[in-house]
Amino acid sequence: MAHEIAIESLTREAFASFGDVLEIGTVEPVMINRGMCARYSDLAHLDFDAESRLGISIFDAKAYELPLQLEMLERHPDGSQTFLPTTQEPFLVIVALDKEGTPDKPRAFLTAPGQGVNYHRGTWHGVLTLLAPSRFFVIDRIGQGANLEEYWFTTPYVVKQSTLQD
Amino acid sequence: MAHEIAIESLTREAFASFGDVLEIGTVEPVMINRGMCARYSDLAHLDFDAESRLGISIFDAKAYELPLQLEMLERHPDGSQTFLPTTQEPFLVIVALDKEGTPDKPRAFLTAPGQGVNYHRGTWHGVLTLLAPSRFFVIDRIGQGANLEEYWFTTPYVVKQSTLQD
Repeated sequence: MAHEIAIESLTREAFASFGDVLEIGTVEPVMINRGMCARYSDLAHLDFDAESRLGISIFDAKAYELPLQLEMLERHPDGSQTFLPTTQEPFLVIVALDKEGTPDKPRAFLTAPGQGVNYHRGTWHGVLTLLAPSRFFVIDRIGQGANLEEYWFTTPYVVKQSTLQD
Repeated sequence: MAHEIAIESLTREAFASFGDVLEIGTVEPVMINRGMCARYSDLAHLDFDAESRLGISIFDAKAYELPLQLEMLERHPDGSQTFLPTTQEPFLVIVALDKEGTPDKPRAFLTAPGQGVNYHRGTWHGVLTLLAPSRFFVIDRIGQGANLEEYWFTTPYVVKQSTLQD
């Protein structure tokens, strides 16, 4: 089944080639506010071209159903893009390595509750792929230019619930 | 009751002197992802000194109980600070205008589910004041220097549940 994609659990290690996983437990926290709050600092590599800046937006998105026909991946050449969930609902994170300017075979990750993700600048990724409708805070580049490349697969991949691993 | 603070509902208008409320409904969205997602762009004024950069951190915080003794406000002279909830649980946002270098009488706001807040650079504010334990994504300045001023009130203010308005 060359065009099926197995869903993997999202971990910092597995995702390192694509971006950052925003979660606690990977850096030592600093206790602040007289012991009432643990601060886990600086968890994402934010990266954008000199002509732009970072902004915070809200994405209000519908849900997709599995099996999912994956027809397209996109990438943003001019900046990283961070997705921060506003609920504890897991969502799908679909990415691919670049192979001479087009995406290699995609990988699909299912987040654990509360994990956020930051796609490194230029990383091929699917659109925000929710399994339940939700809102996300998004930190990305605000500036001129399209900052978007799309790649449409000749034959769509299929992300299937039955291929859920772990 | 000069030292009691009434809790107000958080709205963009009421909060404008202190910072930004991150919520949908205040700007026109752009539809993306073939109609699956509404993007509400660039909702916060992010501001930091030239020697620093922005980072994303996680605050894992305990809850406070009402009535709350408000003893201290703080401010960050070198950058804005954004708090993005990871649940739909409301939280308290305590702020004050500056009056010749010290905070004027504080105001306390209760968020609606899902609202985030961005304190403008230099705005007096209370520490993250949750009514239920939770994690927040925080976008703030990463750089050298303390970037912190604290002001301790001679007589603490009291934020009371019984003073909850509307």
